[in-house]
Amino acid sequence: MPPPLPGRERSGSRSAVFRGLLAALVCAALLRGTPARSDEGMWPFNHLPRALLQEKYGFVASDAWLAHVQRSSLRIGGGSGSFVSSRGLLLTNHHCVEDCISRLSSRSRDYQELGFYARTAGEELACPGLSIQQLGEITDVTARVAAVTEGLAGAAFQQALRAEQARLEQECRTDPDASCELVSLYHGGLYELYRYRRYADVRLVFAPERDVALFGGDPDNFSFPRYDLDLALLRAYTGGKPALTPDHLAWSRSGLAPNELSIVSGNPGSTERLRTVSELEFLRDHGLVTELLLLAQYRGFLNEYAERGAEARRVSSSERYRVENTFKELEGARAALSSRSFFAGVVERENQLRARVASRPSWQAAYGGAWDAIREAQAQAASLAEDWLWIEGPPGFRPPWAKTPLLGFARTLVRAGAERLRGNGERLPEFTDARLPALEQRLLAEQPLEQAFEIAKLRFGLGTLREALGADHPFVKRVLGKASPEELSRSLVQGTRLHRVEERRRLWLGGQAAVLASRDPMILLARSMDDAGRALRARFEQEIQSVLTQNSELIARARFQVYGMNSYPDATASPRLAFGTVRGWREPGRVVPAFTTLGGAFERQTGRWPFALPPSWLAHRHELELDTPFNFVTDADVVGGNSGSPVLNRQGELVGLIFDGNLHSLGGSYGFDIARNRAVALDVRAIAHTLERIYRARRLTEELFSGAP
Amino acid sequence: MPPPLPGRERSGSRSAVFRGLLAALVCAALLRGTPARSDEGMWPFNHLPRALLQEKYGFVASDAWLAHVQRSSLRIGGGSGSFVSSRGLLLTNHHCVEDCISRLSSRSRDYQELGFYARTAGEELACPGLSIQQLGEITDVTARVAAVTEGLAGAAFQQALRAEQARLEQECRTDPDASCELVSLYHGGLYELYRYRRYADVRLVFAPERDVALFGGDPDNFSFPRYDLDLALLRAYTGGKPALTPDHLAWSRSGLAPNELSIVSGNPGSTERLRTVSELEFLRDHGLVTELLLLAQYRGFLNEYAERGAEARRVSSSERYRVENTFKELEGARAALSSRSFFAGVVERENQLRARVASRPSWQAAYGGAWDAIREAQAQAASLAEDWLWIEGPPGFRPPWAKTPLLGFARTLVRAGAERLRGNGERLPEFTDARLPALEQRLLAEQPLEQAFEIAKLRFGLGTLREALGADHPFVKRVLGKASPEELSRSLVQGTRLHRVEERRRLWLGGQAAVLASRDPMILLARSMDDAGRALRARFEQEIQSVLTQNSELIARARFQVYGMNSYPDATASPRLAFGTVRGWREPGRVVPAFTTLGGAFERQTGRWPFALPPSWLAHRHELELDTPFNFVTDADVVGGNSGSPVLNRQGELVGLIFDGNLHSLGGSYGFDIARNRAVALDVRAIAHTLERIYRARRLTEELFSGAP
Repeated sequence: MPPPLPGRERSGSRSAVFRGLLAALVCAALLRGTPARSDEGMWPFNHLPRALLQEKYGFVASDAWLAHVQRSSLRIGGGSGSFVSSRGLLLTNHHCVEDCISRLSSRSRDYQELGFYARTAGEELACPGLSIQQLGEITDVTARVAAVTEGLAGAAFQQALRAEQARLEQECRTDPDASCELVSLYHGGLYELYRYRRYADVRLVFAPERDVALFGGDPDNFSFPRYDLDLALLRAYTGGKPALTPDHLAWSRSGLAPNELSIVSGNPGSTERLRTVSELEFLRDHGLVTELLLLAQYRGFLNEYAERGAEARRVSSSERYRVENTFKELEGARAALSSRSFFAGVVERENQLRARVASRPSWQAAYGGAWDAIREAQAQAASLAEDWLWIEGPPGFRPPWAKTPLLGFARTLVRAGAERLRGNGERLPEFTDARLPALEQRLLAEQPLEQAFEIAKLRFGLGTLREALGADHPFVKRVLGKASPEELSRSLVQGTRLHRVEERRRLWLGGQAAVLASRDPMILLARSMDDAGRALRARFEQEIQSVLTQNSELIARARFQVYGMNSYPDATASPRLAFGTVRGWREPGRVVPAFTTLGGAFERQTGRWPFALPPSWLAHRHELELDTPFNFVTDADVVGGNSGSPVLNRQGELVGLIFDGNLHSLGGSYGFDIARNRAVALDVRAIAHTLERIYRARRLTEELFSGAP
Repeated sequence: MPPPLPGRERSGSRSAVFRGLLAALVCAALLRGTPARSDEGMWPFNHLPRALLQEKYGFVASDAWLAHVQRSSLRIGGGSGSFVSSRGLLLTNHHCVEDCISRLSSRSRDYQELGFYARTAGEELACPGLSIQQLGEITDVTARVAAVTEGLAGAAFQQALRAEQARLEQECRTDPDASCELVSLYHGGLYELYRYRRYADVRLVFAPERDVALFGGDPDNFSFPRYDLDLALLRAYTGGKPALTPDHLAWSRSGLAPNELSIVSGNPGSTERLRTVSELEFLRDHGLVTELLLLAQYRGFLNEYAERGAEARRVSSSERYRVENTFKELEGARAALSSRSFFAGVVERENQLRARVASRPSWQAAYGGAWDAIREAQAQAASLAEDWLWIEGPPGFRPPWAKTPLLGFARTLVRAGAERLRGNGERLPEFTDARLPALEQRLLAEQPLEQAFEIAKLRFGLGTLREALGADHPFVKRVLGKASPEELSRSLVQGTRLHRVEERRRLWLGGQAAVLASRDPMILLARSMDDAGRALRARFEQEIQSVLTQNSELIARARFQVYGMNSYPDATASPRLAFGTVRGWREPGRVVPAFTTLGGAFERQTGRWPFALPPSWLAHRHELELDTPFNFVTDADVVGGNSGSPVLNRQGELVGLIFDGNLHSLGGSYGFDIARNRAVALDVRAIAHTLERIYRARRLTEELFSGAP
């Protein structure tokens, strides 16, 4: 998911008269001159296009089907997963738990390289800091939000919305395992409260070797044909015992055939398909390019850092993987926005809507000014973007997505110390009572940090900070003083004690008093940065975000007025269903088939990373049925965040595991091209076959395929 | 200068009736409703806007003045310089001779760190591979070119132009020291033959420590206020003795005052101010971004490579400097093109011209289709751009500007072997007889290459090649086979003997027979790549470049018809004069003054690189007059390639040395904003003062300031 650059993060809306309007439109909606299509879209469980699904696929989702799939589906960090046994066993991607696998590894036992298999229940290893969420109830709270924000604007509006959000999320959290989130759909058209059950004890059960989980590595990433066993099995625990999970997905032994309906249940992170032209122009010309240039440089740094030797390669591997993946993803998104025909479509859709609005004086009066207001706010946001990126956006001096955990700990402790002294409704949203348990879990999780690597990353970050803002920027002077990035980074990382969980716990429990008394250099640095960050954030939220929010809401209302509700909301990292057909696509001069086989992996391998299969595969090659389907593609609409999503057949059985999209899917944040966008999935038949024949994971195959552990 | 991406390199034109037309227009030209301004522009010595200069500055350039300045000015590699004594002493920037200084340095004597001063004539060290050029005669050959290309199109046109170019350049080369170039001005509006005198023996005389030459390093690059002693002194030799150079610049002791006229004489590399909207759109959205992302990644790699230790830092320093500089330059250019208001100006100027053309049916018939034809060719160029960049563009798998000399040697030897068997007129232009002496000099110059660094760069290049074109691209398969980038790079660099000048000389003298008999792995690789590169180049030149050339010429003709000749041609890396006023500029909230002083450097220094003054400065601080002017800015119009340009007063005396532009100047490739674009120069008073008080370079100060060596 992209980082919160100005103009990209938003929440909130003012919906005074809006509530009644929506209710009327919901019934009127279908096929009213709108571009909506059932083959596109990530639909909330409670807002499915039932008529379209029946018409196109002959598929009727019963309430029981939906409830079962919803409760079997999981949110895992920024990704997805599903329960696959009654005893809490869950399936997700290897690349979604890279971080867990790396944290559990050491110089002498590298589970990335060796793979991991807990032969007994006792060998299952807790993933530090990892929790998963299972969606329970969804409640429409649009009216409550509207009641407190009506008539307000700017800072007052933000404050009221924030307070109501804190109240709603806290009220909803009736037991310690519950975790609640206010979700804004259609850019403020609807507010719903999502109540999750949170499992904070999740343990690693099985992961294959990275060489086959990510076979083809970065060169093959976002491409197809593909040959990846990108899976991991974990288990949710409650009270120290495997969780009981009666809702879980049954395993299909037959998989899907070409042209069959495939249903994807996951948590697409964020899309920008309802953004205005000016917002997308900013992203295309500035936001994405700035981020990409930083990422490219960081990537060059990381890959060269890894050349220091085997240990450097190991400790940096998780970071390198994430950066490579994100880089390719963002570059694909930028390329899509930079395609003249693609962007012409964006402009055309906006012009159509504006023309429709302008055709009726009452609409024009109500909504007509929204686009220009957003353009102006966007220009203001652009002038703050660079400062935002370095001072308040990502927590630490670093390209977005890079991780500098020690400074991150310090910033969290400093902020939390101050925020927790305030009333729940007055806090920054990330520090409300409803959010603290997950925050605390992440902060206090064990995380092995190698000093040399932490120094190098922070040096890189401080150098780019100085370059980006200039050596004379007051913030840069405050941070660096007369030190070089190398000196400062070294003294901070060598001087801090925040790498110890005990020290973090002491400061967390001690609250602001403990933080203020600390002489830890990382804490002192975070304190010295805090004022500038808060000031920038306040300015951004009050001067820009409030304008964007209010006018986005106007456009959402206009869209409902003109087209009805026959469209899906932009993705919000919450559970959605996508529907599509298993099929390949055409490239100039060739057709890409829908399936690959296990045998294809052996043909593609060169013996050199990233095209080297692990020893276990080479040893058992003769025992494999090489025509077993391995990976496949479907035209279901997925984006980042869908990684680890189960693919279901119409019976709701598990037939695959989403782990990627093709190159064409990288424009998916901004639009969907059914001719070529494809999701890439791992076939259940390959999972079963390799667990049985290569990994001999009897304990798991029995649990998975017989329903009994 | 940017690399030859498709659509960015061009030459040639068809000017049948054009010649007469031009002659008529030249007289009619001044102030005919055109946007030309005397404060903007890089004017050829033989096409000065004399009336405008007299009007605005009261400046009249006599023929003698012009001839003297032209002969005193020099082209040095991709930069500029000037003779400053009668015995061949010449002044340029330290950063223009980075490469020479690095080649002369070793682990035990690092002249980058220590600086260099030849206390006696015998200590002056030859710069390997460096030559300089002094412009003599300019001859208009438009008619000759038109005569041979008239009526031709496509490949036939290209071939005829190329053959005539080879003929003209060869005829003109009446003695071995002459070097001739056909220059196409106004995108084919005029063809002129520039005859240079080439000095192939150039020796390093003086260079300060890099810490003060590049004080502020990358953070301060392209910014102002500034405190850089970015100079080097070299000497041209002929026949083993100092060259006699009666035309050289006299040294001004008084410098310039604010608001005085400053005249810059140099070789601006390339501008794109006459490009069409579609060409600039391609650059903005694709060409520049692709290059920047590669450069950013390469930069991250290089900077981390340097962290391996002192020796790695030293051997990579020249490469790092060039990459940092280019990165900032291109990012500034991209930012300018991405500025909505800036690009709106480009579009508006094109629309104005097109409207004027459309207003007269005969013009519309002759020129009206040119813009669309270019847009179409541009789209085709875009589809070849990625292949071009990796297969035929820069010689080696590498981001533009990065240097992988071993593969470069191999490609030159392979191509030259085949090309030299052809007639002079049938060769690729870079291998015509007129170009061979300089090529041979570069190829056979000593160049210390550190194996580990060469392996690392090639590994990086091979990895990015695979990523850019995909592991399944036939070219990638041919190059990599089943090897990893690391393996292949190591075996190539360790196996080749091309690091020895003797081996290169053997293959150069042995020609194609020797090349074909060689089993050197680098030669074998270059041979295996050659066909694909030639095929791509032929396709590009015949299908795309010929269309671009012909239609650019049509637009040039339309521009002359509509506006007359009161405008300057795009820069072509040939000698030009620019005129401007010494003055600061306004930034939001502050005024940037025109001058800095030596004292400012001491205030800015932190003691840490890149803000650490060298020991010599610290030791002599108390002997300096700290209010001596150090650097200054002028609004003369300069771009990359002007580095090392002398700044003159109206008497033609040396008052400064261009070494940079400010951030606003980075859009200079595409347009000029006199309110904020500034050239940054080193003041002669600081040069004289530091040579005398810090460096005690008595031998030089006597030669420079008394006129006697």
